[in-house]
Amino acid sequence: MQAFEIYGGVGGFWTYGPPGAAVKQNLIALWRKHFIVEENLLEVDDTNIMPYDVLKTSGHVDRFSDFIVKDSKDPNIFFRADKLLEDVMDARMAAKETTPELKQEYQRVKNQADAYSKDELWVVFQKYQIKSPDTGNDLTEPVAFNLMFPTPIGPSGMLQGFLRPETAQGIFLNFKFCLEQNAGQIPFGVAQIGKAFRNEIAPRGGLIRQREFTQAEIEFFCKPGDKPHPKFAGVASLAMQLHPHQQQLAGEGTVTMTLGEAVAQRTIANGTLGYFIARTFLFLVRAGCLAEHIRFRQHLPDEMAHYAADCWDAEIEMSLGWVECVGIADRSAYDLTCHGKATKTSLTAQVDLDKPITIESYALTKKAEGLIGKQLKGAGPKVKEYLQGLDEATLKALVAKAEADGAATVSVDGEDFSLSKELLECESKTETKHVEVFVPNVVEPSFGIDRIMAAIFEHTFYTREAEGGDAAAASAPPTDDGKKKKKGKEEGSDDKQKPNVLGFPAEIAPYKAVILPIQLNLIKDNATAYAAALDTLRTKLTDNGLQYKVDESGASIGRRYARADELGIPYAVTIDFDTLGKSDDPSKAGTVTLRDRDSTSQVRLPLTDVADTLTKLSTAHPLTFADLMAAYGTGSLPAATPAAPAGGASGMLEYFAQHGLTAKLNAAVNALGKEKPDDPIAFLVAALQKM
Amino acid sequence: MQAFEIYGGVGGFWTYGPPGAAVKQNLIALWRKHFIVEENLLEVDDTNIMPYDVLKTSGHVDRFSDFIVKDSKDPNIFFRADKLLEDVMDARMAAKETTPELKQEYQRVKNQADAYSKDELWVVFQKYQIKSPDTGNDLTEPVAFNLMFPTPIGPSGMLQGFLRPETAQGIFLNFKFCLEQNAGQIPFGVAQIGKAFRNEIAPRGGLIRQREFTQAEIEFFCKPGDKPHPKFAGVASLAMQLHPHQQQLAGEGTVTMTLGEAVAQRTIANGTLGYFIARTFLFLVRAGCLAEHIRFRQHLPDEMAHYAADCWDAEIEMSLGWVECVGIADRSAYDLTCHGKATKTSLTAQVDLDKPITIESYALTKKAEGLIGKQLKGAGPKVKEYLQGLDEATLKALVAKAEADGAATVSVDGEDFSLSKELLECESKTETKHVEVFVPNVVEPSFGIDRIMAAIFEHTFYTREAEGGDAAAASAPPTDDGKKKKKGKEEGSDDKQKPNVLGFPAEIAPYKAVILPIQLNLIKDNATAYAAALDTLRTKLTDNGLQYKVDESGASIGRRYARADELGIPYAVTIDFDTLGKSDDPSKAGTVTLRDRDSTSQVRLPLTDVADTLTKLSTAHPLTFADLMAAYGTGSLPAATPAAPAGGASGMLEYFAQHGLTAKLNAAVNALGKEKPDDPIAFLVAALQKM
Repeated sequence: MQAFEIYGGVGGFWTYGPPGAAVKQNLIALWRKHFIVEENLLEVDDTNIMPYDVLKTSGHVDRFSDFIVKDSKDPNIFFRADKLLEDVMDARMAAKETTPELKQEYQRVKNQADAYSKDELWVVFQKYQIKSPDTGNDLTEPVAFNLMFPTPIGPSGMLQGFLRPETAQGIFLNFKFCLEQNAGQIPFGVAQIGKAFRNEIAPRGGLIRQREFTQAEIEFFCKPGDKPHPKFAGVASLAMQLHPHQQQLAGEGTVTMTLGEAVAQRTIANGTLGYFIARTFLFLVRAGCLAEHIRFRQHLPDEMAHYAADCWDAEIEMSLGWVECVGIADRSAYDLTCHGKATKTSLTAQVDLDKPITIESYALTKKAEGLIGKQLKGAGPKVKEYLQGLDEATLKALVAKAEADGAATVSVDGEDFSLSKELLECESKTETKHVEVFVPNVVEPSFGIDRIMAAIFEHTFYTREAEGGDAAAASAPPTDDGKKKKKGKEEGSDDKQKPNVLGFPAEIAPYKAVILPIQLNLIKDNATAYAAALDTLRTKLTDNGLQYKVDESGASIGRRYARADELGIPYAVTIDFDTLGKSDDPSKAGTVTLRDRDSTSQVRLPLTDVADTLTKLSTAHPLTFADLMAAYGTGSLPAATPAAPAGGASGMLEYFAQHGLTAKLNAAVNALGKEKPDDPIAFLVAALQKM
Repeated sequence: MQAFEIYGGVGGFWTYGPPGAAVKQNLIALWRKHFIVEENLLEVDDTNIMPYDVLKTSGHVDRFSDFIVKDSKDPNIFFRADKLLEDVMDARMAAKETTPELKQEYQRVKNQADAYSKDELWVVFQKYQIKSPDTGNDLTEPVAFNLMFPTPIGPSGMLQGFLRPETAQGIFLNFKFCLEQNAGQIPFGVAQIGKAFRNEIAPRGGLIRQREFTQAEIEFFCKPGDKPHPKFAGVASLAMQLHPHQQQLAGEGTVTMTLGEAVAQRTIANGTLGYFIARTFLFLVRAGCLAEHIRFRQHLPDEMAHYAADCWDAEIEMSLGWVECVGIADRSAYDLTCHGKATKTSLTAQVDLDKPITIESYALTKKAEGLIGKQLKGAGPKVKEYLQGLDEATLKALVAKAEADGAATVSVDGEDFSLSKELLECESKTETKHVEVFVPNVVEPSFGIDRIMAAIFEHTFYTREAEGGDAAAASAPPTDDGKKKKKGKEEGSDDKQKPNVLGFPAEIAPYKAVILPIQLNLIKDNATAYAAALDTLRTKLTDNGLQYKVDESGASIGRRYARADELGIPYAVTIDFDTLGKSDDPSKAGTVTLRDRDSTSQVRLPLTDVADTLTKLSTAHPLTFADLMAAYGTGSLPAATPAAPAGGASGMLEYFAQHGLTAKLNAAVNALGKEKPDDPIAFLVAALQKM
């Protein structure tokens, strides 16, 4: 919801209330599991406020700007130039009279909108005669507006700070420390999750373009060169929709190919980039996005930063169109090089060479270096540094000139120095190296958590057919195709409307379960027994760290299921008269029904199993509801009362537990366990017979 | 470490590098489990940047200041007045010539240092002749400095924003929405975890006084009055060190009492406050703080905000002395009342009354209200509002005057209105109410996550006696008393220094385990088998979401244990020749040793059990290492080789799995399970015999 709503709100600031905040937390926890734990990444937690120097070096002070165009007659009407250009191109493409050729041209302009320089933008605005949309007035020439929020640090206010525009810089700053923590080993990755801030000119689209938002970024540091990834083979056969820059410039659509193909034919620049594209895709699907509405778009050559080797955006299709949600860029060695230079710190890594290599170099002799220092005094060091920085050919030319003319002139920092040939004495040197030292390249997957949240809400939302629908459809697990219009039969539902469902995966659902007494009479007539059952459930759920809701309202059970469906709660636990032993079937005492939101199927299981079952249903390699139905039978059908010890040998142990025989069984097994049995079956039979 | 270190750093900004960032994340996750899940709190996630209006209402624009005193001869030397006062009082108390009476006086002044107003501070500074510490110059009169970081919002820069000084305001702003989400039920609590920002005058003490820090706050909304808490009985018998304001003002120390006593005798104002003091204490201990170094200090009457009913700080003793880490305040209805007034929003809740009550009131008749509107035109509404706001006695006096004189004059917003007696016609009304409407009171536990981190690092750190020490001491579990100087014997340690250990509880440890090949030859000679074992471990640990480290360096096993101890890793998994089936004892194939950091005890268990065992060892209601030793025996002692199927019936199932018999066993059990067996033992025997 809009932040500060009771104060009228401020554009670009949004608050996650309950249960949105819980979904966001779960999504971040899932990201941590999917990336940090899986890839063994290091994590840093840097500050939101950063000083001027850091952001000057990173280029944000000079270049982190958008361009504003203003209405020439009313300076209070202004637009973000690239977004206005995109909107105008969209409108012209949609116009009836537009020819296919023009359409392609407009599409190209739109694709490049945020890559144009100030001057290019002005040319394009003039070429297409773009006016102020509502007034029709002319627009002013674009002016740059820096998007960082400034804030002064300290009581004197003399130290300029900014709110960070991205979390990535905090990783580069701590590269050296992280490399040490990783015992100098490369490749390795570092992650940071946190807020970033951009003082957007025209925030819009709800969660899509906020002034304060949450990023999750990885910098994966690797050796320059081919950049293969050790785990790439595991994802090579994964196929997805790619939109390479050639297709975009030709106005063509996406192509579907495997990542193995894409990397082999260099559509994707290298294996590390390809690996993170794959992991990103798998993450988005695991979080609830529909695979068919995810594509990876390559940046156009003009759109990419000059230092970037290749860059792909994960775009997700939502009601607003295809929205960039993740950027995965090969940023070469740019960032570490800049920060290293600015701070005179060596931000390098090294690897052992398989065999030592010999390097020949051509450089000043020690003697010449000494003479430069002596003769040029204070200017000596900078002249020496200048000469050391020259490439071999230039240096050789200089030496030749000095030998021919007796001296050669160099210009350093605008000052001319005439150097005699003694000062330019050089020699060829040979050096043997056992390690290779380099500034690591980085591949940077950068996630916009809020945008992914928006996609999840849209993709998991569906409307259930309230009445009718056949049982087979109702119990089918959700699929990509079926989700948006799934049929399901809700037993006992008294609601004629088609109910809305948020089909969050259990891993990110805000509550894992809702607990429901079947009807209010149950509580009224059995207060103590009900309280005891509820308490058992609560305690075990809390112990397992599972959030739940209790709905003790007087609404019908169907109505309460529907309410939980709207909140995206994946499972409902119903306490009924059977649970409390108040029915004709005493075998059901101590059991509850567990209902699956998406299939609306139910199983009946011991109340004491609920928490552990929900834990398994909500983790990385989950138990599926189908497994559960196989183990416990379907509780909602009267015929399918499950045989007590179903569920294989584990179910058997449960059954022993229910009969209070666990300790006895354990003792028997342990007593025999002192000797090593040859035949497990005979052994267990012997143990049982001793009980 | 200091933030932006390669750029020279900026005071008051700190970065958590690995593994500190991971510890912080785990601490926050633990907080979520301990408070949000346990208390079923709602969670919000509001913005860091907040607009002027919100912080004007909350009082932060006007009053969130510290006082600066400057050296009268050098304005670049300045001090935070209250902290300078505290330091001076500390120094004077420590002086030899100080009498006990003076000591008490200085202690009182110190305790009140941050509660003095600007004028009071100046009086105190003059009374005690406080000078600029290094120069001995006079100090200037204190001036207020607002601690919020300002930042402009939007391209015009016309909207003033600030970085939030606390996370609490974001909860109050969203109270209405949260109450709806809670179906109108009260009491309930809302939590927020996030960054807060204070532009400290003199940041110091590392993590203790930062300019950017992490808070975790709860606002627990409840009905005004006695404020009992439904779960108070569960914590009433918990005893802890309290420092009530009477004892502080008398210069006396803490008293130890149970919370039941403290609430009963009104030392702590109410049960809700007492409950959260208890939960806070339990959280701190669970996170690794030592109980004997935790105390709760009550705010002095002068120190508390005027609206607060009672306030207690959890103080933790560290090398810097007793540091306030958590504040738990009963803030009455102050915040909701302010925001409600400022936004003309009704921030109230209601509860059903057990029996309806009748309320009598005395107010203008409808007819009089109509006449006021007609006769006073534009001024009508404000005059009506003024009259409605009068208490009964004042209104009756006014009516009496109008009846006596024909009219009465009232002054509204500086304007006088003469009201005829017709306009002041009043009547007594009787109303029956079934619900009680009120502005909820809040109890606010507010946690400084970074300070708690600092305490955990200090309290869990200990030095192990490297050589010698007796086995009994070595295997004793850590206790409050023993932790700081625990003896432990490290088998195979080749290090003569006393090794340092960070005894993090497993729940917050950055890595749950380190995986160690016993020596490098193991890998060299058995590359494939080792890789397979490692891969099995990695996959299961990742599936369980557990972070781990692998140490394949050439250092001795003892040295690598010691390294892991320094990082606070609670368990070490060692892969040895037995694991790979390369020893004389084939029964140990597929098993590894698991070493406990604090006791240095070891058990030997199946490699496939490791991940689930670690999960249990690192959760809320953990398995203890003693349980594990009972189940598996102690692996480090040669005599105690565990029999293969130890571990009771569950271990038995593992054993079946190792023999590839799981599917067969499950099938046999399931086949028989169709009928309900009477005798579980006979049933399982029958199943086994069919295999």
